[in-house]
Amino acid sequence: MGHDKHEVGIEDIEYFLPERFMTSGDLAKDFGFSLSFIEEKIGVKKIYIAGENETTSDLAVEAARKHFDKRPGLENRIGIIAVCTQTPDFQLPHTSAIVHKKLGLGADVACFDIGLGCSGFVYGISIVKSFMEANDIEYGLLITAETYSKVIDDNEKSTKPLFSDAAAATLLSRQPRLIPRNFTFGTDGSGYDSLILRSGNPAIPSGENHLFMDGRRIYNFVASVVPEDVKKCLNINGMELSDIDSFVFHQASNFMLDTLAKKLSIPNDKRLVRNIEHFGNTVSSSIPIALKTILDSANDTQLKILISGFGVGLSWASTILVTE
Amino acid sequence: MGHDKHEVGIEDIEYFLPERFMTSGDLAKDFGFSLSFIEEKIGVKKIYIAGENETTSDLAVEAARKHFDKRPGLENRIGIIAVCTQTPDFQLPHTSAIVHKKLGLGADVACFDIGLGCSGFVYGISIVKSFMEANDIEYGLLITAETYSKVIDDNEKSTKPLFSDAAAATLLSRQPRLIPRNFTFGTDGSGYDSLILRSGNPAIPSGENHLFMDGRRIYNFVASVVPEDVKKCLNINGMELSDIDSFVFHQASNFMLDTLAKKLSIPNDKRLVRNIEHFGNTVSSSIPIALKTILDSANDTQLKILISGFGVGLSWASTILVTE
Repeated sequence: MGHDKHEVGIEDIEYFLPERFMTSGDLAKDFGFSLSFIEEKIGVKKIYIAGENETTSDLAVEAARKHFDKRPGLENRIGIIAVCTQTPDFQLPHTSAIVHKKLGLGADVACFDIGLGCSGFVYGISIVKSFMEANDIEYGLLITAETYSKVIDDNEKSTKPLFSDAAAATLLSRQPRLIPRNFTFGTDGSGYDSLILRSGNPAIPSGENHLFMDGRRIYNFVASVVPEDVKKCLNINGMELSDIDSFVFHQASNFMLDTLAKKLSIPNDKRLVRNIEHFGNTVSSSIPIALKTILDSANDTQLKILISGFGVGLSWASTILVTE
Repeated sequence: MGHDKHEVGIEDIEYFLPERFMTSGDLAKDFGFSLSFIEEKIGVKKIYIAGENETTSDLAVEAARKHFDKRPGLENRIGIIAVCTQTPDFQLPHTSAIVHKKLGLGADVACFDIGLGCSGFVYGISIVKSFMEANDIEYGLLITAETYSKVIDDNEKSTKPLFSDAAAATLLSRQPRLIPRNFTFGTDGSGYDSLILRSGNPAIPSGENHLFMDGRRIYNFVASVVPEDVKKCLNINGMELSDIDSFVFHQASNFMLDTLAKKLSIPNDKRLVRNIEHFGNTVSSSIPIALKTILDSANDTQLKILISGFGVGLSWASTILVTE
């Protein structure tokens, strides 16, 4: 598989988690769940919660700064910052402008937000990569960042024990360690209200402004659509399931990962990546956080990693990342 | 200037305005302004206001349907819908998923929202064009859509007499009538609070949830940054000011357009496009609405159109559109 020398891909990944957290023990007690339900079915041992005055841009900036700390001068070479979020600091301006200010960057930076949920990282990689190639940009950051804790009802058992606040900053460049091959993208807007935050809509009475999730509908969507999408992604890339070294699915829940493994006949071995135990469902950051673990532990082996994101919208996307 | 036969550009533009409106007479009376201040300095004779239950996706869908009505079958060939908005129907899901549902499209459509204000059309053209080229997508819609009326305080004289609700749907394809040349993009996050809607931020007490605009700061930004950006855009495209047939600036206000014309020494002739009189400031739709007028009246003449968007963020972007 020949690569264009000038192709943009993923060079490095950093992430940031807030200091506050709750343990599976806390959650079991608060909601009257058994510890095994929290730790095994949901799959969570810890969820992270942003501080009272800690916003999405704060998490985003901490993740981005880790790249700048590692390589002095990089901050002057960034040409694009795309922030994928649905819990922005403000309704407007875009959170990427606030990140731009807090990082103290120069004027020649293209900043915009991407409005997507759990499929956002996969979409975002294609959006930022193609934008950088078209506009001859050397370095770019795709930042996935959410503070769902601020829009979750603390008493809501379908969402509170699941979601974590987090940000990941993915550095894209022409010296990539991972290059994306062909992508699949899909949407089923008829499920738009399966995962919804109605605030902002003037037709909705106030008080209904917490995150609502219809877990069964989301489950049925993932179980039926995602395995087919994964097969399609393999097909358009001329690969078989057995060619893939690691499957990095969005970490929706342990139960969902088990379902995908079963439907796709992926043995529950180390090829099926799980990180939800340590991080909770970090929305669009779950895939880059898992990828970082792979990158940090990879030696010189050639790797093929299939990534697949799915959720709010309903929306899904997959691609295969190949080591350079 | 040779064009790649497979390059994506703008094929067609449609827009939609809600039925409700206010006239300059109404606005003059309500705010105690003179008619000449409204009509000449702001430059507005009419502003459009979405119906009480009419949301951003409703306007977006009406604009998109005009394309489908003109060419049966197009709806089955759309591969991407990007909605640029900062007044989404809901905080999540993305408004593009709701547009997808209302248009009844199939599953193989990439849908995402772009979070940007008045610079959004120019950014969006580059985002959608490069995404389509990278992912081999035949037809795409960039929809710019806002319902600022829902977040504006009806008694606020700095915003109410200026902004209109509107949507524009720009069809991109490989049979383009206008092809974008090189782009400039810029951000100054230090001005993030010059135009801001604080709702959504938990650190902000409720009650401060209307659109705030610091008109003087916005004016100073536009007067200093945009003329330099226009010159840079000409420069990176190897053109002179005199090469440009039409200047389509974001229709911020008549006063702003006068300032730009003066700073750039563009004679106030028909080359400087003004449509604010008929539409108000329609945020990210002002440029495509003006472009439609040019496309509809153009004969076979070769045209070079410089477009420049600027506003909330602070954010700006420019490019030159060349007839195919």
